[in-house]
Amino acid sequence: MQEEGLILRKEVAKLAGVSEATVSRVMNGARPVREATRRKVLEAAERLGYVPSALAQQFARKRSGNIGVIVPYVPKVRLFSTYYFSEILSGIGEAAQQRGYDMLLMFRSPYEARDYERLYRTRKVDACVMLGSQDTPGELEALARLAEADHPFVLVNQRFDGAPFGTVEADHEQGGYEATRHLLGRGCRRIALLNGPLVYSNSADRLTGYRRALAEAGLPADPGLCYAGNYSRTSGAAAAPALAEAIAQGRVDGVFAANDRMAIGLLQGLRERGLLPGADVALIGYDDSEAARLTEPQLSSVAVPFHALGVRAAQRLLGRTADGSPADDASPVLVEKLPVQLVARASSLTYTPSV
Amino acid sequence: MQEEGLILRKEVAKLAGVSEATVSRVMNGARPVREATRRKVLEAAERLGYVPSALAQQFARKRSGNIGVIVPYVPKVRLFSTYYFSEILSGIGEAAQQRGYDMLLMFRSPYEARDYERLYRTRKVDACVMLGSQDTPGELEALARLAEADHPFVLVNQRFDGAPFGTVEADHEQGGYEATRHLLGRGCRRIALLNGPLVYSNSADRLTGYRRALAEAGLPADPGLCYAGNYSRTSGAAAAPALAEAIAQGRVDGVFAANDRMAIGLLQGLRERGLLPGADVALIGYDDSEAARLTEPQLSSVAVPFHALGVRAAQRLLGRTADGSPADDASPVLVEKLPVQLVARASSLTYTPSV
Repeated sequence: MQEEGLILRKEVAKLAGVSEATVSRVMNGARPVREATRRKVLEAAERLGYVPSALAQQFARKRSGNIGVIVPYVPKVRLFSTYYFSEILSGIGEAAQQRGYDMLLMFRSPYEARDYERLYRTRKVDACVMLGSQDTPGELEALARLAEADHPFVLVNQRFDGAPFGTVEADHEQGGYEATRHLLGRGCRRIALLNGPLVYSNSADRLTGYRRALAEAGLPADPGLCYAGNYSRTSGAAAAPALAEAIAQGRVDGVFAANDRMAIGLLQGLRERGLLPGADVALIGYDDSEAARLTEPQLSSVAVPFHALGVRAAQRLLGRTADGSPADDASPVLVEKLPVQLVARASSLTYTPSV
Repeated sequence: MQEEGLILRKEVAKLAGVSEATVSRVMNGARPVREATRRKVLEAAERLGYVPSALAQQFARKRSGNIGVIVPYVPKVRLFSTYYFSEILSGIGEAAQQRGYDMLLMFRSPYEARDYERLYRTRKVDACVMLGSQDTPGELEALARLAEADHPFVLVNQRFDGAPFGTVEADHEQGGYEATRHLLGRGCRRIALLNGPLVYSNSADRLTGYRRALAEAGLPADPGLCYAGNYSRTSGAAAAPALAEAIAQGRVDGVFAANDRMAIGLLQGLRERGLLPGADVALIGYDDSEAARLTEPQLSSVAVPFHALGVRAAQRLLGRTADGSPADDASPVLVEKLPVQLVARASSLTYTPSV
């Protein structure tokens, strides 16, 4: 394969009347070449049917130069427009760009079996970042197969406890704990949790942190105060009627929503019902997205370093240099947890309990 | 190359004691295979050093299965977090996913010459969508070379007048016209334009529309009322001191900002100076991003179908079916313009001229 490539390059060089190095320069575009020379080489290559061969090189070197990013496919959801994904993708993209890698975005099909191995076998990617993985048996099995075959990958913001998968996440248990502690500090005693699906470890972690804070304050974790959303704004708005009633009846005085989108949907739904977060109830979101600073009142939240999660995941896979050395998945720890930070704003700060 | 592949597949089949079709099934993952069979085939392939060969197939078929998306690389700007790019990317991603294509994101290097041809020569991509192109001689030349070599590409939201490039954009001249007409209808007579750089045809188009509306109303287009931003929120905030002074002195009674980010930066800067859009000045943004509904007052804007632009661009390149037929760049028109729509909200609707 490689030899065949060399012979052909020689022939192109001969026909074009240039050196083999010049042919390479034209083909790999690494350095500028005079336009006349470039045309001569390309014409010779075309006449000989020479397949200029980064692909052949990749084939020989066994590298694609692509970092794969597996993202969930959710019809009608504009993935890139969600703060969570867009920030992580920006981080991965930045790290990839610095290392001369391109980013191959692949949608995880909801219909087919997950054959991640195939992406490596066919050299579409050298390594993969997994976004939006869910803790399901099928996913666990697919990832275990990858790990067994020693294909480098890193999960972002999803942990499979007990499985030996490289993971970069944020400390969401601490986040849930601090959000709840903050509401307790504002005088709230009947705190509702509007959470996302528990197939995501980060939802389960927020719940654990919420319960820990309540237990420390000597308060029971009332299952009747746990509301199930799906991280969309619509699901936050859908929780508004029940929560508005609970607030009006004094059964709820604080709400911790597991992301800002749900918090904003809820905020708008409460306002439509004449209840203002910050006055009638204390509200805190999660993510500290740009939108949290735009609502009226501004939304308290928990800042998650999504961009840094993306950078870190790509760094672990691509190594710290751009010299083409093999992917470095060796990290001091298998699961890295980056810290989160409480950001208090008017939606909780201006609240005073009525009792 | 292809023959070599066939011979090897036969050997793998023989060693594994299965049919060649089974080897293919394992390798291309198209249909489920019993786990034991799968392992036998993979072991045989490994022993023989068989390179399972979607890459070889791509090489033979001359297709990569990737649609390239060229995006500008701007350090420190989180590209995916901007409404404009995230919506277009969602549209391209949706259309690509439906056609079985993956999306290869590539950053346009600010430092190197643009050699887009190389992406096709090396079979990294079958077709490309160009985002954030600027009307500069270098870019024009690079694109002309692509067009000459018959490599399929489509520009999104950037037009090169007189060049034969496939383009999908929105009618920004009409958008600028309608935004300005709306402010005139609110009683404004001294309308400032906070525009983006004119290397983008869509900035130039908004300016043309703005001037047309003023001319129709018998008003001069005062160059002193044109402010230069760069589409960032910061650049909107930076225009606030000068605009606040002009508003306070009665030299400006309406502002058309060429995107919502600049409008929001300006809105915040004006509020800090005690001026409230909707009361002291009429303000309209552009894009109708989610943020426009979150500000206080809510921001008037012009809705641009960014998601549809992305879908349409990918459709033109990939054709309407997923059967692997050659890319179809044949469109009834070379430059498609999708319509925009005015969305009036409080930032302009509640304004009443004082005179």
